[in-house]
Amino acid sequence: MTDIYEDIRSFTGSDWPEVWAILHETFARGDTYSFAPDSSESDIHRAWIDVPLRSYVACDADGRVIGTYFIKPNQPGLGAHVCNCGYVVAPHVRGQGLASLMCAHSQREALALGFRAMQFNFVVASNEGAVRLWRKLGFDIVGRLPGAFKHAQLGYVDALIMFKQLVAA
Amino acid sequence: MTDIYEDIRSFTGSDWPEVWAILHETFARGDTYSFAPDSSESDIHRAWIDVPLRSYVACDADGRVIGTYFIKPNQPGLGAHVCNCGYVVAPHVRGQGLASLMCAHSQREALALGFRAMQFNFVVASNEGAVRLWRKLGFDIVGRLPGAFKHAQLGYVDALIMFKQLVAA
Repeated sequence: MTDIYEDIRSFTGSDWPEVWAILHETFARGDTYSFAPDSSESDIHRAWIDVPLRSYVACDADGRVIGTYFIKPNQPGLGAHVCNCGYVVAPHVRGQGLASLMCAHSQREALALGFRAMQFNFVVASNEGAVRLWRKLGFDIVGRLPGAFKHAQLGYVDALIMFKQLVAA
Repeated sequence: MTDIYEDIRSFTGSDWPEVWAILHETFARGDTYSFAPDSSESDIHRAWIDVPLRSYVACDADGRVIGTYFIKPNQPGLGAHVCNCGYVVAPHVRGQGLASLMCAHSQREALALGFRAMQFNFVVASNEGAVRLWRKLGFDIVGRLPGAFKHAQLGYVDALIMFKQLVAA
């Protein structure tokens, strides 16, 4: 997957149809992100592209988009030294390490952008693969929100808050 | 303070100058909210009035605004059953119980609006009075964000996540 790592780059407007296809398919399942399964394209464009500070895509050897992530301050002003990211991997390349590569990339970008820490606000507790991955990548579980996510199959499940210092305190 | 409780009502546009005066004075201190101390009036109007689902004011016996709060979903779609609120009390009436009254009011409103729980994302740990108050009102500390708030006097301090179920799970 090192080739893919080299192909993580800034999002440009012409990437959107491919990005939207991946996001739509992911959010429609209703098992990992809080976006409503029937979220409109414009709502997701706002959340993934317009609101964030930066958005990125990961491409395969043929230049097709296979993953995407965003980075933004998690709070305004006095909390803006902590960033928040969201990552989505295309279904056909899951389990091959792309989320790890995007997360590593995002941490480098976060430091370059001046952030001191990274926070995930809403990791669905039943998404055990994600929780395990973020822990492996150095994120601590710093909070648990009881029943905060309405899972499409499981009903109300907990969401976790995960946090990693990028700069020594 | 029961009189004040009766005078908590929905925000209307003509309240804004009084609301802004209270918010501006509070945020300028840089010790409780993450809004930058020099936040513009339009940025705060967006955050306190435009983005939230509902905003409210508390008035004294002469009809002057002495407190304000907002309520909004803390997440979109599958997390929208948990609300988030922010409260600000005018400096000259601090310590008289108005925050408690607004919080009680907000919990009733939250239930009426269909929310099942209430979450505070960013309670500054050094704001001990607030932490004590929210605990007294039934909120649990469910998370701690290390160094997530840049306090104007104290530098980096922790922020707490607090949570209260409003409907039995």
